[in-house]
Amino acid sequence: MNPHHAFLQALSNTLPTLSIKTDTESTQHWGRDWTVHFDTHCQAVIFPKTTEEVSVIVKLANEHQTPLVPSGGRTGLSAAAVATKGEVVISFDKMNQIGQFYEADRMVEVDAGVITQSLQEFAKNQGLYYAVDFASSGSSQIGGNISTNAGGIKVIRYGMTRDQILGLTVVTGKGDILTLNGGMLKNATGYDFRHLFIGAEGTLGFITKALIKLEKQPINLTAMVLGVTEFNGVVTLLAQFGQALTLTAFEFFDQLAVDKVIAAGHTKAPFESQAPFYVLLEFEAINDDVLNLAMGVFEQCAEEGLIVDGVMSQSIGQLQELWKLRESISETISAFTPYKNDISVLISHLADFISDIEHIVTANYPDFEICWFGHIGDGNLHLNILKPANLTKDEFFEKCQTVNTYVFDTVQKYQGSISAEHGVGMTKKPYLTYTRTQTEIDYMKAIKAVFDPNGIINPGKIFD
Amino acid sequence: MNPHHAFLQALSNTLPTLSIKTDTESTQHWGRDWTVHFDTHCQAVIFPKTTEEVSVIVKLANEHQTPLVPSGGRTGLSAAAVATKGEVVISFDKMNQIGQFYEADRMVEVDAGVITQSLQEFAKNQGLYYAVDFASSGSSQIGGNISTNAGGIKVIRYGMTRDQILGLTVVTGKGDILTLNGGMLKNATGYDFRHLFIGAEGTLGFITKALIKLEKQPINLTAMVLGVTEFNGVVTLLAQFGQALTLTAFEFFDQLAVDKVIAAGHTKAPFESQAPFYVLLEFEAINDDVLNLAMGVFEQCAEEGLIVDGVMSQSIGQLQELWKLRESISETISAFTPYKNDISVLISHLADFISDIEHIVTANYPDFEICWFGHIGDGNLHLNILKPANLTKDEFFEKCQTVNTYVFDTVQKYQGSISAEHGVGMTKKPYLTYTRTQTEIDYMKAIKAVFDPNGIINPGKIFD
Repeated sequence: MNPHHAFLQALSNTLPTLSIKTDTESTQHWGRDWTVHFDTHCQAVIFPKTTEEVSVIVKLANEHQTPLVPSGGRTGLSAAAVATKGEVVISFDKMNQIGQFYEADRMVEVDAGVITQSLQEFAKNQGLYYAVDFASSGSSQIGGNISTNAGGIKVIRYGMTRDQILGLTVVTGKGDILTLNGGMLKNATGYDFRHLFIGAEGTLGFITKALIKLEKQPINLTAMVLGVTEFNGVVTLLAQFGQALTLTAFEFFDQLAVDKVIAAGHTKAPFESQAPFYVLLEFEAINDDVLNLAMGVFEQCAEEGLIVDGVMSQSIGQLQELWKLRESISETISAFTPYKNDISVLISHLADFISDIEHIVTANYPDFEICWFGHIGDGNLHLNILKPANLTKDEFFEKCQTVNTYVFDTVQKYQGSISAEHGVGMTKKPYLTYTRTQTEIDYMKAIKAVFDPNGIINPGKIFD
Repeated sequence: MNPHHAFLQALSNTLPTLSIKTDTESTQHWGRDWTVHFDTHCQAVIFPKTTEEVSVIVKLANEHQTPLVPSGGRTGLSAAAVATKGEVVISFDKMNQIGQFYEADRMVEVDAGVITQSLQEFAKNQGLYYAVDFASSGSSQIGGNISTNAGGIKVIRYGMTRDQILGLTVVTGKGDILTLNGGMLKNATGYDFRHLFIGAEGTLGFITKALIKLEKQPINLTAMVLGVTEFNGVVTLLAQFGQALTLTAFEFFDQLAVDKVIAAGHTKAPFESQAPFYVLLEFEAINDDVLNLAMGVFEQCAEEGLIVDGVMSQSIGQLQELWKLRESISETISAFTPYKNDISVLISHLADFISDIEHIVTANYPDFEICWFGHIGDGNLHLNILKPANLTKDEFFEKCQTVNTYVFDTVQKYQGSISAEHGVGMTKKPYLTYTRTQTEIDYMKAIKAVFDPNGIINPGKIFD
């Protein structure tokens, strides 16, 4: 017997048109995100269509003490959108309308379930640009992006998802509907709850709509891929190019990542030389002056021996081809059962930090392959440890847990973040104190109690 | 007998070097900001030098039930930093050090009491730029800027104070020291309390330090002042110039403001023609292409009859002279005992909104002069009603209270903000429900109870 039978019955009575699925295929499909470390256990999936329906659902869930887990595009990497304790999952798949467009404000209202790529395409059709972009933008939903404050490849120029959100409609854990900030650039009328819900991973309430800032379309985006002799050089290049140009991206990856991407047939090598590290940088080549500036920095850095070799895109086709080097990494290495970390430190600490980590892993686990890549312009590194063929998945993950402690000790040493853009969910929950103090976590719990006094909303995520 | 004698005695015992002033001149000086509607009543002013001292003070204040009012540069316009009930004032004047500079991160740590202009000068000396600027930057302190999320004249390009804050050290109302976000661009580890303290007007705790993002210095800033025939034209110009250029400012003011500024001898008329409205726009003229673009838009708008006349700065001196037209307004009209409003609506609603307000005021108060100016590129208007000579100050303010209700009804009609960048403090507290719902205010009170359970920290500000 479904322990939430009475809740589901009450839902059907109150919202007779609400779609409710309880079959195993559905609960397994909607009950999980991209993380693989947890078994899904979900009693039902429900598909509201309006903010008001979400409010009714949350109020009934409070009455029946039924925990609710939000489900967006299910592309999360920290298990914030996984039901493991027989919760009821609330999917935003049917709240997927793009609403009013405010041309003079360059702003559009979207439902939480709108796919990131749909918003990008909408913006493009208006002659504008939605600036948040990452590998899963074809599946991820705006509500999930907001709940994890998603970052991606353009943060250096446009900021995080947080920076695009001019207004937010949320249903709190008590079922109250809050319409926050109304799209204004300036509004100094008390606490800005918008920013509390952004990045809260659905633990304070559910985001149902957002007012999104759009940007002007970038002009003639141009990428360079550079081979770099040592990691310090990556940081120097960031400073040099960052000083001369307004960068729209500054990514890095290592030779191992390039080898795997090429072996998987995603693209070809950028040039004949090999290098321990690569940088992909991008800028708007609005005119020849800018191109000359970029070439000048390139030549100077090459003279200084920082760059082994380099290539610059001459067309959109070449730009897209160069980006494949970076954007195919995640998909390519997924075949090697990677143990993923998503960490950040100040740029000032990057070189020392990477050196420490490489030392730790090679000293303790000489048979592990480490694949480094990341949004280095934001101090954000994806550290991926690839499973050696001779280890089982369980043996490998067990060893990685130990590596994890070393890695997070090092993150803490440099006062960094154990989760730069993937959130905490369940996978990073045991490590939260490496970045946040116990006092902060206690305040978080008290804040959750304000918005969700019965602990109905995504319980057991971020903290217990 | 000072009712807070025991508290002050305990302070002296615990922090023997702490400066405490109780003389009337000091309490009157530090006990108020720029607002004039409240009588100052303050028992003592204390001057901590470190975050740890602030923590000790707050803990003792909790023990003794002594309310504390923060005091920064005292330039606030909403009475958030005024002691009226015999509170003890905590001044940040002695916490005024500029700390570590992180070159690779373009970031600097500053104490709360650092003057905005000192930070601007520090940035300039590093070849960088602190982007928040407004009329009171020579006196205002960073802690106060953060607590009110100060805006100013460059928001259209660089955002609010909120957008410059990469890390924050705060002492909560319980006396806990929180060090938030550590300067990282990406950090998805639970609730971002930084954004809760920004704009909280010192009601949740006291900001003691901040990590501030610096920008690259702008290149060849160039201003245009344009005379505009009707308000709709201002919005059209914003769209046209905003599409062609990356604007660093887009301000507007009316003929009355220009008349007063010129009569006061601050500068001369920008050109011979007169116009009901003026726009001051600014951009980086990085090369001739950009200048030509700007001139092209100007010519097109002039042909369409939107622009009466215009002038463009050809040097830094001319740039500064044109800015005087806008920046002298506030000081100039202060001689006319203005009743100030600081409101914002979506740019999409601006023209209708202004038309409604003008209709209301001229219909009901034909003898009132209205001076309009503001950061129109952010939807932010400063509506100033000037006192007719035949009314006493009290008669005038009483009438203004009634106008206020009409104005705020109109703000509410367009779902705008009754305080765009000045905060709520005490002056806007009675009107908070025009922008925030009672449910939101109830949540605010509950959040305050989490960080300040004894109501020690700046009580009676924002809400009761």
